[in-house]
Amino acid sequence: MPEQAQIGRIAILGVGLIGGSLALALKKAGAVREIVGWGRNAERIAAAKTAGVIDRAETDLAAAVADADIVVLGVPVGQCRNLLKRIQPHITEGMVLTDVGSTKCSVIKDAKAVFGELPVKFVPGHPIAGTEQSGYEAAFAELFEHRRVILTPEDTTDCEAIMTVRRMWAASGAQLSEMSADHHDEVLAATSHLPHVLAYALVDHLATLQERREIFEYAAGGFRDFTRIASSSPEMWRDIVHANHQALTPVLEGLIEKLQVLRDAIASDDQSAVMASFERAKTTRDRLISLAEADD
Amino acid sequence: MPEQAQIGRIAILGVGLIGGSLALALKKAGAVREIVGWGRNAERIAAAKTAGVIDRAETDLAAAVADADIVVLGVPVGQCRNLLKRIQPHITEGMVLTDVGSTKCSVIKDAKAVFGELPVKFVPGHPIAGTEQSGYEAAFAELFEHRRVILTPEDTTDCEAIMTVRRMWAASGAQLSEMSADHHDEVLAATSHLPHVLAYALVDHLATLQERREIFEYAAGGFRDFTRIASSSPEMWRDIVHANHQALTPVLEGLIEKLQVLRDAIASDDQSAVMASFERAKTTRDRLISLAEADD
Repeated sequence: MPEQAQIGRIAILGVGLIGGSLALALKKAGAVREIVGWGRNAERIAAAKTAGVIDRAETDLAAAVADADIVVLGVPVGQCRNLLKRIQPHITEGMVLTDVGSTKCSVIKDAKAVFGELPVKFVPGHPIAGTEQSGYEAAFAELFEHRRVILTPEDTTDCEAIMTVRRMWAASGAQLSEMSADHHDEVLAATSHLPHVLAYALVDHLATLQERREIFEYAAGGFRDFTRIASSSPEMWRDIVHANHQALTPVLEGLIEKLQVLRDAIASDDQSAVMASFERAKTTRDRLISLAEADD
Repeated sequence: MPEQAQIGRIAILGVGLIGGSLALALKKAGAVREIVGWGRNAERIAAAKTAGVIDRAETDLAAAVADADIVVLGVPVGQCRNLLKRIQPHITEGMVLTDVGSTKCSVIKDAKAVFGELPVKFVPGHPIAGTEQSGYEAAFAELFEHRRVILTPEDTTDCEAIMTVRRMWAASGAQLSEMSADHHDEVLAATSHLPHVLAYALVDHLATLQERREIFEYAAGGFRDFTRIASSSPEMWRDIVHANHQALTPVLEGLIEKLQVLRDAIASDDQSAVMASFERAKTTRDRLISLAEADD
């Protein structure tokens, strides 16, 4: 932990894959004195403590939040507003708030609905990391290493609060970026929400075919990779799609149009049109993925 | 090599990822006395010999095929007909022929065009294995272990020839299945060709967006897995799509319809319709993938 003070107490509300991995990463880095974990389920939050993911387990929100320097909302976007409502009476002036939700406009809207405005010490955040698994059992300290965390503060957000949240994520090994919530939601609609919708749609479609048993039996590694994200939590993704449906709809429409053009080219056996599309895709992916990996 | 005689000489025409891995697997199993590799490029085929992938390198087809017990067409489907034309004068009565093409009706059509009918010792085959890489440098002996190989013989196909090809693949560690070429092409259209078209279409679509640099910069592991197959060879996939466009078109149309229904549900924020689709997909994938993995 060079050049930054240790965080005193952090409260992680929702100790799942993301909240649990953040706790483990901060412990590993020696970046925090005490990590308090809150969960609705007494048995599971106690088990997260026993497993060494958190230092103290609470099912009472007032107790969990009390005297915390940073409060992290570790719940999916669908549960964000309700959790904000419940902690609102317990938030004191000095506390920095942040979240890990996959959509940012919706979280800001939730905060404004609960607090009247976005609290100046609420720094919306989104770690671009995860697996199709969930729960603290899947958490690991290295989840955020070399991964991006996007913060979407507003003009009114307190500078010190932003620095505190940046330092917290930097200690977990993540790389920080800042952008507007609108822009975040557009980029993530394309890079994350659209692929999830596609993977779900593909598997849902194949499930209706007569040969579905064989389709999965003869599925090679490429297919399993391609559809892995369709094993993600349907509830969580329904909520993400709901929260970001305005940014997602146009990018999905664009893809459907692209598929219709390709369908026509394939049906009429227009091989040069098919080739042009495949080549553009390969060139783009190879170039941009290698750029992204060079940044890692 | 229990319960089967060693193969004397095998000629692999096209020593790429598939042909090269087959050579390495058969060597590892001690299943063959000599592996002759043919390639158009003298330097590359010599390098494949130097690398120990094949025992003898040939650029002359007559020499490569001479006295072979099994001739394996290791080229992509787009090159199959031309290769069959060129080897046709050199095929003698005792030789067993097989191929590794991703589509089977097209290969049978090619063989009928060249030979007048499907030769009784031509056993069409398709190993369901591969990566997005190509070339003998990417080959490895374990590529086919626990993977499926589908053979699509016709009623007229010689029984001994089928057994010879089965034994060859079994020695490489693969699991054998037989089905009609029509059925193979339908199943593979859904499980392999459609996902490739989707991945190419997605990346091609994202490449047209203004934020494309950021889209790839903020791409997490899920996205990279999801689009990995869009780094496959465009030429090879153009040819596969061409060869199987009749089976591919209806399954692509069905997917577009499914996406249109989902788009409407997302745009109108019909969360229960979105949830129903995501849940069916997750249930299907989890159940069927676990069945498929239990078979491995």
